[in-house]
Amino acid sequence: MSFSDAKAVPTIGVFDSGFGGLTVLRALAARLPGVRFAFLGDTARLPYGSKSRRTIARYAAQSAQFLVREQGAEFLVIACNTASALALDAIQEAVPVPVLGVIEPGAKAALAATQTGDVLVIATDATVQSHAYAAACRARGMRALEKACPLLVPLVEEGWNEHPVTAEVIRIYLAQLLGEATAQGMSPDTLVLGCTHYPLLRPLIERTVPAGMKVIDSAEAAAEAATQLFNGHAAQTAFKVGVQEEIHCFATDSVEKFERLGSRFLERATGKVELIDLGG
Amino acid sequence: MSFSDAKAVPTIGVFDSGFGGLTVLRALAARLPGVRFAFLGDTARLPYGSKSRRTIARYAAQSAQFLVREQGAEFLVIACNTASALALDAIQEAVPVPVLGVIEPGAKAALAATQTGDVLVIATDATVQSHAYAAACRARGMRALEKACPLLVPLVEEGWNEHPVTAEVIRIYLAQLLGEATAQGMSPDTLVLGCTHYPLLRPLIERTVPAGMKVIDSAEAAAEAATQLFNGHAAQTAFKVGVQEEIHCFATDSVEKFERLGSRFLERATGKVELIDLGG
Repeated sequence: MSFSDAKAVPTIGVFDSGFGGLTVLRALAARLPGVRFAFLGDTARLPYGSKSRRTIARYAAQSAQFLVREQGAEFLVIACNTASALALDAIQEAVPVPVLGVIEPGAKAALAATQTGDVLVIATDATVQSHAYAAACRARGMRALEKACPLLVPLVEEGWNEHPVTAEVIRIYLAQLLGEATAQGMSPDTLVLGCTHYPLLRPLIERTVPAGMKVIDSAEAAAEAATQLFNGHAAQTAFKVGVQEEIHCFATDSVEKFERLGSRFLERATGKVELIDLGG
Repeated sequence: MSFSDAKAVPTIGVFDSGFGGLTVLRALAARLPGVRFAFLGDTARLPYGSKSRRTIARYAAQSAQFLVREQGAEFLVIACNTASALALDAIQEAVPVPVLGVIEPGAKAALAATQTGDVLVIATDATVQSHAYAAACRARGMRALEKACPLLVPLVEEGWNEHPVTAEVIRIYLAQLLGEATAQGMSPDTLVLGCTHYPLLRPLIERTVPAGMKVIDSAEAAAEAATQLFNGHAAQTAFKVGVQEEIHCFATDSVEKFERLGSRFLERATGKVELIDLGG
């Protein structure tokens, strides 16, 4: 195939209910320089974590359609555990491009890490109630115990990533989860961070888990899986790869808050965030 | 006016982005037995506290129209500080009935309580950024210093109303606020709870404020103002008053969560909560 056949720089669409998914985008951009990324945070309707499957599916499908139709994304990463858990099917039906969620890569990484086959998962209410991680782990022969930790997202958004209050909340949540695991006769050796906000708490969490317990970051796991899938896809379609990655961020509300907080998750400035209206 | 001219039992519509406004409904029902209450929690789109004025105005107007058009409310109480701060005008334009928010009654109660004229206000991000309490206090000759306390709502929803972590978070927030007030040369003697979730933290907050500081509950203040206004209105229109109040709750999502958590705010069972779709 000659150079003139090559397509323009490919676009990967990355979607989250808020800006937590920027941790996935950061991990992706580090692995795929020269790709154009369009990130959509559906901030007008966040948090998805406390909403029903029906509502989440509707919101997520609209968001995916924006990235594919308006931004020309040829590949979608659902950088939102709740939407991946509750709406992956709905998104795959709504758009004609490959769609990857964060649950399966997280479960796969847990399988690579665990020796006992017993895994703990912390996430939002809706992700836990979906039992998507438990199902994905069971399908790979592991047992998983899940716990909702609804205070962790607000603590991260308050910027208390290394705060004594956050350390105490994590200690309480993990003690409850470990106690429950013991009561069920489990021997967990791996903890999955099933929410894209939690990578910012990873240092505190690693200091709190029992010695030897491995901590799996579902954002890193998803970025790794997406990179492999995308590279296979790109090899077939002979995408022209740019010199440096481009990142364009869109939000349905609170652009100022997105720009202010988003840089913590992306570990660099988000650039100008564009406000869009999904009609919600 | 003869008895046959009397209208049916009147309906008061009470609106919140979630179920926190049930603290206002509880205070209202205690004052107005024999009234029918229709409560709408726009739970599909909560929290309003992190959203923009434009979005909040649109959501609140739709919610108010549901209560008036579908539920026949003759009187509306906006039991949501954020919507009262950012969307009272938009709601008043959207419906043809009297509308009362929580900000003005809160400021009025602060005026009755303060001796120094210096008032502190704690609330959500959006309420604080609107500076609606500061403006309402200034209009009454007081100075107000406002602080956003974004962790308090999730702590209440986690049920940690008397938890040591919550006590520590309140201590930190109030120390910051009092420090700032001192730096500005203020002598505050009154604290306004500018969020309908906060009444559940009132015992902890009262143990944390400096001795002699008065704590104003904007939910109680709004219920008192609404009762006076409604009684005046009812006297004119000769409403027939029922024997016992009726409470009907509606939510745009998460009916199960509403029923489970709502009873803590209402201090009794919510009854069956009806799911409605506002098209968001």
